[in-house]
Amino acid sequence: MIAILKHGTTAEQTEHLISWLKRMNLDVHVSQGAEVTILGLIGDTSRVDMELLGSLEIVESVKRVSEPFKQANRKFHPEDTVIEVGTAKIGGGNFAMMAGPCSVESEEQIIEVAQAVKASGAHILRGGAFKPRTSPYAFQGMQGEGIKLLLKAKAETGLPIVTEIMNISTLDLFADIDIIQVGARNMQNFDLLKELGKTNKPILLKRGLANTLQELLMSAEYIMSEGNENVILCERGIRTFETYTRNTLDLSAVSVLHDLSHLPVIVDPSHATGKAKLVPPMAAAAVAAGADGLIIEVHNNPACALCDGAQSLTPAQFDVLSKRVAKIREALV
Amino acid sequence: MIAILKHGTTAEQTEHLISWLKRMNLDVHVSQGAEVTILGLIGDTSRVDMELLGSLEIVESVKRVSEPFKQANRKFHPEDTVIEVGTAKIGGGNFAMMAGPCSVESEEQIIEVAQAVKASGAHILRGGAFKPRTSPYAFQGMQGEGIKLLLKAKAETGLPIVTEIMNISTLDLFADIDIIQVGARNMQNFDLLKELGKTNKPILLKRGLANTLQELLMSAEYIMSEGNENVILCERGIRTFETYTRNTLDLSAVSVLHDLSHLPVIVDPSHATGKAKLVPPMAAAAVAAGADGLIIEVHNNPACALCDGAQSLTPAQFDVLSKRVAKIREALV
Amino acid sequence: MIAILKHGTTAEQTEHLISWLKRMNLDVHVSQGAEVTILGLIGDTSRVDMELLGSLEIVESVKRVSEPFKQANRKFHPEDTVIEVGTAKIGGGNFAMMAGPCSVESEEQIIEVAQAVKASGAHILRGGAFKPRTSPYAFQGMQGEGIKLLLKAKAETGLPIVTEIMNISTLDLFADIDIIQVGARNMQNFDLLKELGKTNKPILLKRGLANTLQELLMSAEYIMSEGNENVILCERGIRTFETYTRNTLDLSAVSVLHDLSHLPVIVDPSHATGKAKLVPPMAAAAVAAGADGLIIEVHNNPACALCDGAQSLTPAQFDVLSKRVAKIREALV
Amino acid sequence: MIAILKHGTTAEQTEHLISWLKRMNLDVHVSQGAEVTILGLIGDTSRVDMELLGSLEIVESVKRVSEPFKQANRKFHPEDTVIEVGTAKIGGGNFAMMAGPCSVESEEQIIEVAQAVKASGAHILRGGAFKPRTSPYAFQGMQGEGIKLLLKAKAETGLPIVTEIMNISTLDLFADIDIIQVGARNMQNFDLLKELGKTNKPILLKRGLANTLQELLMSAEYIMSEGNENVILCERGIRTFETYTRNTLDLSAVSVLHDLSHLPVIVDPSHATGKAKLVPPMAAAAVAAGADGLIIEVHNNPACALCDGAQSLTPAQFDVLSKRVAKIREALV
Repeated sequence: MIAILKHGTTAEQTEHLISWLKRMNLDVHVSQGAEVTILGLIGDTSRVDMELLGSLEIVESVKRVSEPFKQANRKFHPEDTVIEVGTAKIGGGNFAMMAGPCSVESEEQIIEVAQAVKASGAHILRGGAFKPRTSPYAFQGMQGEGIKLLLKAKAETGLPIVTEIMNISTLDLFADIDIIQVGARNMQNFDLLKELGKTNKPILLKRGLANTLQELLMSAEYIMSEGNENVILCERGIRTFETYTRNTLDLSAVSVLHDLSHLPVIVDPSHATGKAKLVPPMAAAAVAAGADGLIIEVHNNPACALCDGAQSLTPAQFDVLSKRVAKIREALV
Repeated sequence: MIAILKHGTTAEQTEHLISWLKRMNLDVHVSQGAEVTILGLIGDTSRVDMELLGSLEIVESVKRVSEPFKQANRKFHPEDTVIEVGTAKIGGGNFAMMAGPCSVESEEQIIEVAQAVKASGAHILRGGAFKPRTSPYAFQGMQGEGIKLLLKAKAETGLPIVTEIMNISTLDLFADIDIIQVGARNMQNFDLLKELGKTNKPILLKRGLANTLQELLMSAEYIMSEGNENVILCERGIRTFETYTRNTLDLSAVSVLHDLSHLPVIVDPSHATGKAKLVPPMAAAAVAAGADGLIIEVHNNPACALCDGAQSLTPAQFDVLSKRVAKIREALV
Repeated sequence: MIAILKHGTTAEQTEHLISWLKRMNLDVHVSQGAEVTILGLIGDTSRVDMELLGSLEIVESVKRVSEPFKQANRKFHPEDTVIEVGTAKIGGGNFAMMAGPCSVESEEQIIEVAQAVKASGAHILRGGAFKPRTSPYAFQGMQGEGIKLLLKAKAETGLPIVTEIMNISTLDLFADIDIIQVGARNMQNFDLLKELGKTNKPILLKRGLANTLQELLMSAEYIMSEGNENVILCERGIRTFETYTRNTLDLSAVSVLHDLSHLPVIVDPSHATGKAKLVPPMAAAAVAAGADGLIIEVHNNPACALCDGAQSLTPAQFDVLSKRVAKIREALV
Repeated sequence: MIAILKHGTTAEQTEHLISWLKRMNLDVHVSQGAEVTILGLIGDTSRVDMELLGSLEIVESVKRVSEPFKQANRKFHPEDTVIEVGTAKIGGGNFAMMAGPCSVESEEQIIEVAQAVKASGAHILRGGAFKPRTSPYAFQGMQGEGIKLLLKAKAETGLPIVTEIMNISTLDLFADIDIIQVGARNMQNFDLLKELGKTNKPILLKRGLANTLQELLMSAEYIMSEGNENVILCERGIRTFETYTRNTLDLSAVSVLHDLSHLPVIVDPSHATGKAKLVPPMAAAAVAAGADGLIIEVHNNPACALCDGAQSLTPAQFDVLSKRVAKIREALV
């Protein structure tokens, strides 16, 4: 970490600051220039409160040279992390297709969709049991009952399950779930992250709508610092001024996260765009950008032709997407 | 709610949609135009999933005519809500100044600051016991011990206390706290909101960094729909591309929220700007914009001259700010 | 266009509004509901000032059913526009690779780069002569001299040229340039757009950093409404809160623009990301998303090894990228 | 300027870079640390291309210690700039109220509004003759004829005039205009800025919708570097995800710009919010935040009651606002 001191800082002020930093077990290397004095802080600076340091009267600015995340950092763990669930692998050159309905609605629905997406090559079944909804009056998911239906679909098809947790008090219900998802709105629910860090379940951590990539990695660090290294990062769109799409899918996140971290990175084009017809091109783009997996909404509701246009794909559309993804992956080799 | 159907929608498709809507207990008023067909949905549309409806193949777009929040809505509750804690009142023309340190650090610190801000006219003492931090390695607050120190400061000065909750499992610790704060990162932690809705404590609900004003009101609605109507809204800056300030304080939120809702609206210029020298002008602006209160970081650490420049004001700076706020409020009468 | 009137609007006010709208040569279809009155405006609503209408006391909200752009609109021009320059074609299934240095620096440089990118399969040479720079003290480009050097490179290699115009007073210098670029900062320099609309040159129109896709199409409409239908749209990143990349490349723009318009859409991953190592994955992603072309910065400066890391690719890196793009395009067929 | 070199940079590479920097007339101060090497660049770094330097293979990051703007910089010009037009003064404790219609529509209209706003205490008349419109089909202003009508209103009332220029070719028409406005969309139309820098007219420079405060100051620098030091900065809202207001008014800009620069700073609450009822509270807030002036849309159209709700205030509403602003300014003394 580098602290640049303001022009006009007195020797006494500088000494005062240095002795404060040394009390935090840091070595301080002073570089006295004509216009500025620069302090190089050496040691474990991940514990230094950069904002506090930067706000001191005599400090012009502070700059990290090393990243504040350690366990998620590729510098300290050069090889890709590979997460295994059942026969599926994610990361390190292994690609995982996750698919399924937004919400679990009934046994028939979830099993039918599970069979359909498996037939089209999906490796993991997604489905929401606990649903974070903006409105308290909207359907909040089948909750515990939904989890049971997901496990039935797993028994039926052999597909591992990924589903979202909203509240640590429900953790027991997730005992047989393969991957626990933390939604975008909970990306900085630090107490939830810490508790999940005490499990050994793979955690699918979605980027928050207004969170930087560094903050996403810091949230992964919360999980990992408690002992659970099985974190999958997920880009799912950020909030911008553009209103045509629900969010703006930031595909450069895939490369950047791969650069900074050894963790696998997947992409959710369904929630990012909010429009079914944008899902296939954005899924293709995500794969070309190097994603280690996709998570796609698919539902099968022949009784209700009304829903054809939702952000979910039909099984037939998913089948086309899945084949296209396979071809792009071959082209990238 | 208005649904505009696409050009070329068949009569059969339209009928199918109308019967589906009627099954949701809505009356449907059809307006057949030359180019478009418009459906007017009448009844309790707060339970209609607007995104699903908008995503149907035959639907061009959907527009709410009435807001999706009911209990927070001024239309159904024209008079300002006034929240009372101790002798302080917030809303309906009553102004509350909340002040105190970012974190509770020691008994001496919190009592000294409490006495200082009280002397300068603060009505409520703020202080963080549970601290949401981006990094798992940063100081996480004194937690339960911090709550006890806040209550000592209350006993000493008579000031009511506002402090943040991060996790519903700690709720018991807040039994004697006057106002429970929900931080920006937890604005859409819906399970937490619901649990707080079952208490009768005033809740200070901060706007999330990427949340619209409507989403803020929907989160208030989560609390209110469980029975707790004592919600105070707080604007504290949103995330934008500008990097000079930590966030961008959106003061138009004050007027807009007053228009849409009867709930009191306060402003936190300390977190929004992240810079002590911007706090007094933004506090003055917030008051001129009609805020019902301010929440300001103040700390008193004469032993550590290093901290003078932090986002917190010194008690002396707070005293100046407090007097200026009083003068502006008089000018607005 | 649909105007929804507020509850409580009197019959007289409604009549007053309708007669005003009729004076604008619009037919008005009234739909009187229990809670709201809806006016359907029929006719050429592209000339209606939607903001003014929406701001009227009695109007709840206004919604366009048809888009405000006509000539750029796919509804009125279903087939893809194909732009031809020399032997290169852009759009309608034809892919164009544009490559070259950020700035023209010397005859030797531009010819060397032109030969290199041509050998790697580029169809069009890019190079900046007039450079919009944030600072008045930064290099502003070789200007007229740069244009001459580009034309020498064209003579030498046969590659058509694309270069940026900043000021209509320099238009004469672009007489032999094949495609005139309008930079992101000038996307809403309407007088410049109108003048370019009077030429018959293909115009490469870059999306502004804070402009919506609809605004981009409206700027295309400015050019087209003057008679020049040869517009190429270019996504080059939007400004968001994320600071790791210079801008956030919005690849969903490719599909959305193809949906709304018949104009070709290309992508500039170099300016969007600002980092050479992110260019190849984002170029691949853009192609998978369906882009009709790419514009890539490439420079060749063996004398100055210092520049290797810039946002520009070396010719060797570009050669790899170009082959990868070809393989992805084959996979998409 | 500070350049931090990457760990592992060789001595030869470092020497190569230093010699390159020295050729740019900079002194380089090397600080060799255990983990990083830091170069301090001393001299006129405003001409250093920071992005190029930062993109070099061996450079970890680059940081400016001094700002890239010189003439707009308060460090080199500590006293406030005061702009005088007629009897109005802006800056240095002097407050200017600018008011008038969005567009000049007729002689009667502009003179009536001018008389009304003068009676309510306005110092300067605003009115648009050249109107930048998103749509080529929308009213583009009365143009040259509008300028003439503004000058008639000036002759009638004595109020100085501020109006927008869109195109340098129309500069002659502005010979008798007192303040030339550069709109948000032209903030980075650098050729226009340079030409205005060659005049001696006060220039009202509006912040672009996606521009940082530093970019605004760099655009002021474009004008000032050509010799014209009479620049007035104007905050008018930035583009964010919030859709309730047209833009988000960033009032912290007022204090920040006053800190960084000696130029006067005014605020435009009419365009920022897009809603008449938000204009008075945001005007009050801007004054409390320390603005040197306001620019407010006012129109007077008794024949057309339809327009009452527009973003413009009526003369009566403006009169109330003007009195309130005066009271707040007194409270701030």
